[in-house]
Amino acid sequence: MSSIATAPAAKAQIDPKLIVPAMNSVKAVFETMVKVAVQIERPTIKATPGVSYDVSGIIGLSGDLTGSIVLSFPTASATKLVSAFAGCELDPKSPEFPDAVGELANMIAGGAKKAFGFRANISTPNVVIGAGHKIARLSDVPCVVIPCKTAMGDFAVEINIKQIGVAADANR
Amino acid sequence: MSSIATAPAAKAQIDPKLIVPAMNSVKAVFETMVKVAVQIERPTIKATPGVSYDVSGIIGLSGDLTGSIVLSFPTASATKLVSAFAGCELDPKSPEFPDAVGELANMIAGGAKKAFGFRANISTPNVVIGAGHKIARLSDVPCVVIPCKTAMGDFAVEINIKQIGVAADANR
Repeated sequence: MSSIATAPAAKAQIDPKLIVPAMNSVKAVFETMVKVAVQIERPTIKATPGVSYDVSGIIGLSGDLTGSIVLSFPTASATKLVSAFAGCELDPKSPEFPDAVGELANMIAGGAKKAFGFRANISTPNVVIGAGHKIARLSDVPCVVIPCKTAMGDFAVEINIKQIGVAADANR
Repeated sequence: MSSIATAPAAKAQIDPKLIVPAMNSVKAVFETMVKVAVQIERPTIKATPGVSYDVSGIIGLSGDLTGSIVLSFPTASATKLVSAFAGCELDPKSPEFPDAVGELANMIAGGAKKAFGFRANISTPNVVIGAGHKIARLSDVPCVVIPCKTAMGDFAVEINIKQIGVAADANR
């Protein structure tokens, strides 16, 4: 069910210069905050219907860039990675669990935003919990899926971004 | 499982002046675009773990307000309401279905944002599809659930908003 860059669902292309900062941010956040090395697999343009996840942290972007950055896990990966991040065992049913997922998504989006070189603002996260949910692809937003592997389990980062302004100062 | 304003999960309060514009926007969008009357039930502060949904459109807000507006449906309501909005029968598996859910969420968030009187930007929507998913409550973001009833089925609007700036000019 994996998609490739030539999948028919891919009407719009995402600028590669948006992908590298996002991948760097994923690596930096997991390596410094979760203390786990991340092996980033080849990013793919998302096809419909996309991959199913159990836990997703969603951050909206607006400003010169509009869209979202989504951090999605199977439950087992989320439990291990988020517990390592929090420094204590977190049950997926505990109220701290979505807070920790949201905070990881927030750090990744914050790091990527800083490196994008656009005037973009990020929203506070939404965290979706539900076995086998999909983040649907909208037809007018290019979406790239970055699969990530770690010793504690796999996850994915989905970058749905549309540029609506011109490039601005870096580090805004 | 419904929550009330005194539910223990409710650490933070949401400003009532943010709820009324959101409710007005929900009514206006459904009445003009879906051609269905909306009966708005009493808003409640969201408790953990919250209500389960099958289809959710999520819009991030940033600027003086940060958070999100989420439009969530059971599948049957979503199918009827979104088909009425699109003017043709939409299958929940079709690529047009998430586009239409996202556009409805976008119109509601856009209408609410305009009426809030804050400098806030909205992101393009994310649409989550998955039977029984929950939008987790984050501990530091006040969240109000607005249950809505229509002749085509029920749905809910969740307003997760934190004010981070001061009130600004209206209509920004």
